[in-house]
Amino acid sequence: MTRTKDKNLLLWNDGTAKKAIVDFVARVTTKRGADFVPEAERIAVFDNDGTLWCEQPFYFQGLFAFDRIKALAPEHPEWKERQPFKAVLDNDMKALAASGEKGLLELVMVSHAGITTEEFQAIVRHWLDNAQHRRFQRPYHDLVYQPMVELLAYLRGNGFKTFIVSGGGIEFMRLWAEEAYGIPPEQVIGSSIVTKFEMRDGKPVLVRLPQLNFLDDKAGKPVAINQHIGRRPIAAFGNSDGDMEMLQWTAAGDGLRFCMLLHHTDAEREWAYDRDSMVGCLDKALEEARVRNWTVVDMRKDWKRVFG
Amino acid sequence: MTRTKDKNLLLWNDGTAKKAIVDFVARVTTKRGADFVPEAERIAVFDNDGTLWCEQPFYFQGLFAFDRIKALAPEHPEWKERQPFKAVLDNDMKALAASGEKGLLELVMVSHAGITTEEFQAIVRHWLDNAQHRRFQRPYHDLVYQPMVELLAYLRGNGFKTFIVSGGGIEFMRLWAEEAYGIPPEQVIGSSIVTKFEMRDGKPVLVRLPQLNFLDDKAGKPVAINQHIGRRPIAAFGNSDGDMEMLQWTAAGDGLRFCMLLHHTDAEREWAYDRDSMVGCLDKALEEARVRNWTVVDMRKDWKRVFG
Repeated sequence: MTRTKDKNLLLWNDGTAKKAIVDFVARVTTKRGADFVPEAERIAVFDNDGTLWCEQPFYFQGLFAFDRIKALAPEHPEWKERQPFKAVLDNDMKALAASGEKGLLELVMVSHAGITTEEFQAIVRHWLDNAQHRRFQRPYHDLVYQPMVELLAYLRGNGFKTFIVSGGGIEFMRLWAEEAYGIPPEQVIGSSIVTKFEMRDGKPVLVRLPQLNFLDDKAGKPVAINQHIGRRPIAAFGNSDGDMEMLQWTAAGDGLRFCMLLHHTDAEREWAYDRDSMVGCLDKALEEARVRNWTVVDMRKDWKRVFG
Repeated sequence: MTRTKDKNLLLWNDGTAKKAIVDFVARVTTKRGADFVPEAERIAVFDNDGTLWCEQPFYFQGLFAFDRIKALAPEHPEWKERQPFKAVLDNDMKALAASGEKGLLELVMVSHAGITTEEFQAIVRHWLDNAQHRRFQRPYHDLVYQPMVELLAYLRGNGFKTFIVSGGGIEFMRLWAEEAYGIPPEQVIGSSIVTKFEMRDGKPVLVRLPQLNFLDDKAGKPVAINQHIGRRPIAAFGNSDGDMEMLQWTAAGDGLRFCMLLHHTDAEREWAYDRDSMVGCLDKALEEARVRNWTVVDMRKDWKRVFG
């Protein structure tokens, strides 16, 4: 017996993960069922890096920052001798790692701030149109996971409202999330820097200041969900320890909940990594998934295809 | 000749304000018209206090804070002699005003923080169910402006997405905004205090800390719009100087825009105030409306009814 709704997840192999998703959706959408949830409360939250699109060999927004530093370098000859800039210009990932979070934050501020929101948008758009992923030789926003795009549409088709809740920059993601995922800007939540309203030549602008406003990662994710959505999600999807608190917060609500982790097990079509990865480390959350019975997707086994 | 769409604003008298609204909506929704705007971009933002509900004799959330201080007073005998608490307990608005913004902020922190988000919601709900507005002898959330509720529905019926962008507390408003205005929590934007994710007895909670996170007023409003919505509105509705930057930001976008100020001119049915009011002061923005040709609603003349 084939259920009608299964036809919507054609890129997913039959297995426990697909079955868990379809069963959950059937239960919360069955009127007069014990687990029925009204449409307005069908909130589903998705991490982005490593959950909806690829994050290897490094977070794509990080690669954008590096490209931006290189583009700005001619105006900053002193960077040739100053870390963490030297590491970027030399493509020296080891020296970059040694500069730590502080170094990375400095790179983000220099590459993302000191301009208006409109100038930033133009810079990111230009990068998206021209930069290519080295391994796959295609634009970064092509590297979204098709089974997840299908899942987003499947949930929306069942009355869910889908949100991104990511450590990535909120204004960086909004530029392509609508086209890539069908998620409008107002449903994209992320990290942000401080912006300031100013009048310039009688025209109002928002200026991006080199100061962190909010880091939407780990324990920050439930805080951001509460701030932006104001309702507890009934379904949450992630892939790393940075998503654990978001899944815990989702799971702790009353009634039926669905929590899923994507396990990168596919070195051939994408990457295989978890506990020891610098990017998207999945360690504590994988243990929590075992204890709490969260659904773990095995990319290699569960997905018929990865990219479009 | 009567237009079909005019039938939707039955609580508005015919006049320049109603005509300006209806004309704007007709132009942005006319396909192949020069001013057509796709549905996804039909974002309309509304201030709350004094724009969607009453704000006299004092912001209702301030009155909630005072009631909360009175309820907590038995545990704090020292408040009898300490400002700004003494002013609240003595109903001494003059002493309260003298304590300034700093005093008010202290009252907000004591009455709004130190509890979890769920505890806060329960306290506000209890207050809404039991407190009454002194002049009108009815619950505060009954004092929403019916012509504005009608306008919200009219805009949504024409493909707009309606948001609240208010100096009021984001978690305070979300508890009743959906029922009162048809605006879901994720479309309510406001001021906020810092919240922190914690595990308590194995259960995650969000604790409200006595620290301001964001003040959604004046130049903060365009910042909040950019942060939460990520698109520039095409229509903005306010009533005080605190809304001026929001209207400027809205007006400065490309294409047709609509900006409206509600002028409180109705001492009989509500209140008459503008330049000299402690609450909802309308001075600079009224001048800006004249210069920029924003629509000014005259409550007394333009509205058939005020409350439900």
